[in-house]
Amino acid sequence: MENTALMLIDVQKGFEEPYWGTRNNPDAEEKMARLLSEWRDRGRPVIHVQHCSVVPGSPLRPDEPGCQFKDEVAPVTGEAHFRKSVNSAFIGTGLEDYLRQKGIGALVIVGLTTDHCVSTTTRMAGNLGFDVTLVSDATATFDRTGHDGVHHSADSIHDIHLASLNDEFCVVRSTDDVLSGLRD
Amino acid sequence: MENTALMLIDVQKGFEEPYWGTRNNPDAEEKMARLLSEWRDRGRPVIHVQHCSVVPGSPLRPDEPGCQFKDEVAPVTGEAHFRKSVNSAFIGTGLEDYLRQKGIGALVIVGLTTDHCVSTTTRMAGNLGFDVTLVSDATATFDRTGHDGVHHSADSIHDIHLASLNDEFCVVRSTDDVLSGLRD
Repeated sequence: MENTALMLIDVQKGFEEPYWGTRNNPDAEEKMARLLSEWRDRGRPVIHVQHCSVVPGSPLRPDEPGCQFKDEVAPVTGEAHFRKSVNSAFIGTGLEDYLRQKGIGALVIVGLTTDHCVSTTTRMAGNLGFDVTLVSDATATFDRTGHDGVHHSADSIHDIHLASLNDEFCVVRSTDDVLSGLRD
Repeated sequence: MENTALMLIDVQKGFEEPYWGTRNNPDAEEKMARLLSEWRDRGRPVIHVQHCSVVPGSPLRPDEPGCQFKDEVAPVTGEAHFRKSVNSAFIGTGLEDYLRQKGIGALVIVGLTTDHCVSTTTRMAGNLGFDVTLVSDATATFDRTGHDGVHHSADSIHDIHLASLNDEFCVVRSTDDVLSGLRD
């Protein structure tokens, strides 16, 4: 566990905008902050991933205030920080090389959104051979409507994506479960 | 459209085994075969991806008969064939280099399973800058139970994954819609 990194994906102020729709897991940031505090207390590696959108109108464009990290999980000196412009934190960044160089073989992933950037990064991390834990209540997403006009709630999307990811790309655990593992 | 490749992911006999659970879209292979026939008639590029599993007990291990392609979509001479051992057809293969060398910038993706290898490959293709169409009725998946013990039907999983992928990584279209586009 000593060299397991906590990776926080796209925990940025712009996700508060109505642009994204209706969200689930309103307490996810509080869970992320608890995990981050424990990682810092133990001096374990922390990696912040920031989405710098190239989509016109996105609240996550680099010139928008929404691109900033949320205060409760903002990076401090010495923590790794990667910027990306697509969903996967491994594409167009030096993340894989960084992890290999630091000897980090395991990741605990939290952040936004479950089915877009969190899922894509979890999938690539698992396929690249990293041992991934995905935290069910420290991730969240928004409701969406499919190409067929059918509407899906954020909770349904979240739950089904976790079911597809679990045991194929990662192990899904709760914040409490991850924290009690740290204290064993 | 001339240089749009049809990519068939993991359409292998081993997916007929009860090992995988209950499937949706039983007609997906018939739709794939229709698309394949049209692509061949027009001399457009076809790419077959084959999963060579390293998981003990998987019907898709290279030494199992289930690793073979299903007869109705098996490759013919001159069609590209990539073998992979993880979900993404871009990891551990020469697929990206092949597409760049051939000048293929657009993909129409079909195959198995919607939420595992099809989703992962669609996500990476979109993030790498390819223009991806994902065919809703020429893909399929299996039911799954989440880490929380909640069971999800194959149809629910399929529909929600398409909703998450559409307009973020790809455009979701039906077989008929893709075929009528070819004839315009």
